[in-house]
Amino acid sequence: MDNRDGQASTALLTDQYELTMLAAALGDGSAHRRCTFEVFARRLPHGRRYGVVAGTGRLLDALAHFRFGESELAIAAGFLDARTIDWLRDYRFSGDIDGYAEGELYFPGSPILSVRGSFAECVVLETLILSVLNHDSAIASAAARMVSAAAGRRMIEMGSRRTHELAAPASSRAAYLAGFDATSNLEAVRRYGVPGAGTSAHAFTLLHSGADGAHEAEAFRSQVATLGIGTTLLVDTFDITKGVATAIEVAGPELGGVRIDSGDLGVLARQVRDQLDGLGATKTRIVVSGDLDEYAIAALRAEPVDAYGVGTSLVTGSGAPTAGMVYKLVEVDGVPVAKRSNHKESRGGTKKAARLARATGTIVEEIVYPAAGKPPAANGFHARELLVPLVRDGGVTAKPTLAESRELVSRGLVSLPWEGLKLSDGEPAVPTTFLG
Amino acid sequence: MDNRDGQASTALLTDQYELTMLAAALGDGSAHRRCTFEVFARRLPHGRRYGVVAGTGRLLDALAHFRFGESELAIAAGFLDARTIDWLRDYRFSGDIDGYAEGELYFPGSPILSVRGSFAECVVLETLILSVLNHDSAIASAAARMVSAAAGRRMIEMGSRRTHELAAPASSRAAYLAGFDATSNLEAVRRYGVPGAGTSAHAFTLLHSGADGAHEAEAFRSQVATLGIGTTLLVDTFDITKGVATAIEVAGPELGGVRIDSGDLGVLARQVRDQLDGLGATKTRIVVSGDLDEYAIAALRAEPVDAYGVGTSLVTGSGAPTAGMVYKLVEVDGVPVAKRSNHKESRGGTKKAARLARATGTIVEEIVYPAAGKPPAANGFHARELLVPLVRDGGVTAKPTLAESRELVSRGLVSLPWEGLKLSDGEPAVPTTFLG
Repeated sequence: MDNRDGQASTALLTDQYELTMLAAALGDGSAHRRCTFEVFARRLPHGRRYGVVAGTGRLLDALAHFRFGESELAIAAGFLDARTIDWLRDYRFSGDIDGYAEGELYFPGSPILSVRGSFAECVVLETLILSVLNHDSAIASAAARMVSAAAGRRMIEMGSRRTHELAAPASSRAAYLAGFDATSNLEAVRRYGVPGAGTSAHAFTLLHSGADGAHEAEAFRSQVATLGIGTTLLVDTFDITKGVATAIEVAGPELGGVRIDSGDLGVLARQVRDQLDGLGATKTRIVVSGDLDEYAIAALRAEPVDAYGVGTSLVTGSGAPTAGMVYKLVEVDGVPVAKRSNHKESRGGTKKAARLARATGTIVEEIVYPAAGKPPAANGFHARELLVPLVRDGGVTAKPTLAESRELVSRGLVSLPWEGLKLSDGEPAVPTTFLG
Repeated sequence: MDNRDGQASTALLTDQYELTMLAAALGDGSAHRRCTFEVFARRLPHGRRYGVVAGTGRLLDALAHFRFGESELAIAAGFLDARTIDWLRDYRFSGDIDGYAEGELYFPGSPILSVRGSFAECVVLETLILSVLNHDSAIASAAARMVSAAAGRRMIEMGSRRTHELAAPASSRAAYLAGFDATSNLEAVRRYGVPGAGTSAHAFTLLHSGADGAHEAEAFRSQVATLGIGTTLLVDTFDITKGVATAIEVAGPELGGVRIDSGDLGVLARQVRDQLDGLGATKTRIVVSGDLDEYAIAALRAEPVDAYGVGTSLVTGSGAPTAGMVYKLVEVDGVPVAKRSNHKESRGGTKKAARLARATGTIVEEIVYPAAGKPPAANGFHARELLVPLVRDGGVTAKPTLAESRELVSRGLVSLPWEGLKLSDGEPAVPTTFLG
């Protein structure tokens, strides 16, 4: 899978039909027509009030490695003619891409990405673009809801084991972008600089067993000896009250934290807080984990929880594991095009978008308008253009840091009208107007 | 991410706590205790009657690349002591692994994988093992339901755009293993030899537009010229009846197929079949796609559909995007261990499993029993041992081909009692008995 510059090629992360269409278009000359393809979501996942654009940075990296080396061409040669193979051998995207900045909120119909160039050079990117944006946006959109439910408390992503091994670091990145504080995934630490977290599992306590049963104190003592007094001890392997007592007995009241991974977390957090305080461990933090989603996190808001560990629901998009974005041809040689079949209409023509906000910063409307036209009237609101240049003549012009995108999500959440942050099923937080 | 032998290292596809536990266990000497970890699912996804084990082959490959090179050690050194780093530098799994063969059906509590060795060498594999098995088994389990719903008709996996770009080829592989016939994903063609499929999207028809509107016939003519008369033309970009008429006009009655991607697929399939037959295109196949899941596939069983293209629901596990398997320490130095906290009990001790079947081949019961004990009485049924040796002394001893695993799924589905194949919510197809 390595290509000429030693990086893994992304060229075969592609549906076969992109290349058969290319072959036919090269055959009849239409391959060179100037096209715009747009990425958008027809709707948000059921009941969601906003989405978070994520994956743009990963996509721009993957684009640079979309190259057909001999290994990739050998597969393509199985179903393509020699002319198409020659064209692929020289493939470099040379067009322009505009897009919503990574971390921007989006709504149904938002033109999240606008890809312009020849039909040939744009069509082959469809699958890769959608895979990256659909995955990362699904995770970031779920993560943002969890972050607002947590209301400022520490959030640790720990879902690697419940998703594909290479989707895991991308999930960690998307969660961090949406406001999580740390991840359990070491590849995400390496690749994206997300802060790492994690201390021990039940297996470590169980390891310290003999024929006479379990020695929880021995396990705790060992963990503190190696990881220090600031570590978090997992106290629910056997009896939680005993576990907490043992933890403080072993580590003293300066213990960093205890983690509870099972049971009625709200009730247990209160009991454990009381017990810790009674033992003088007033600064020892309580970390809870175990099948948490945004609703469970919100339900614990009144409890003395210091940090949440979130796994399965995060990496599976909390019920919406894909963002459902599509990549549609909207303009050919300056003429808008759109299909007309049932339930899947799309709007033709290259578009731009602006978001209107009150002076307070609260957003009120998204306006999608023809790129060839003039920006819409702001009617006294502040209008912000949403599409920014990402690629010009095939070269990446703007790639914000993960920290900048994280900040953008944070600002976006603050800009929502209050009902936009509700976890209950609802309509998109602001309406979108499509100008003709 | 490349390590010494030029292959990507999988060592950081790991949760941080595996390595902090390792450090503490090396510190107190418990790292060298002989342990068994087992992989199992506490329950099947809601209403499912069986699961399909998938990912084993990928896991055995990933295991061979679980090596800490300097790049991986640099990340680990951020939170680990020098002794642990030295240990990781020399890491090779040297233990034994038994498991359900890839493609075997499983039920709640089935000991799908049994990993034996020192605590240290086993604990670090937890995340990688679970990521691979949870992802691939979720996809294969959903795919198997779709395959049985399709009752022998051709199934094409086309969900790459709705999952992480590198989860996509693994999804294609899992779908093929479960009985799908082909995939759109070219990386799956390269890596796993899954047959490729795909011809064209709506964009290709729309590309053939001018200021005077769309020229569907031109698009069809071009596609047939390049891909041949056996190609499948997408007929629903505008009006389906006109699209079918144009397709046969352009290609003649020997056209390979037409695809319908929107609308009421059952009604349309009948109309299109009649129309094709009336035009003499009696052998032209009808391919349907567009938001299909196992229920929609089953609902089309009476319609003249020749092939299904399945995307989103397949790669998201049709409502169950992860298999929910866990990796639990069950035995330390020959002594069974188990945690006792609420709702998450596990059964201590290394286990084996056997499946009982009638003379007809229909299975009746799964029996999980202590590995140290003798196999259970078969009571007149045929008993088949389910755990097979996969790794001995760190070396892979058995890795069936994808074709063999595919055959095993097929045999497994035939072995289910009839109610086990129902799509409706139900109990596991056979009960599991746990012997003490």
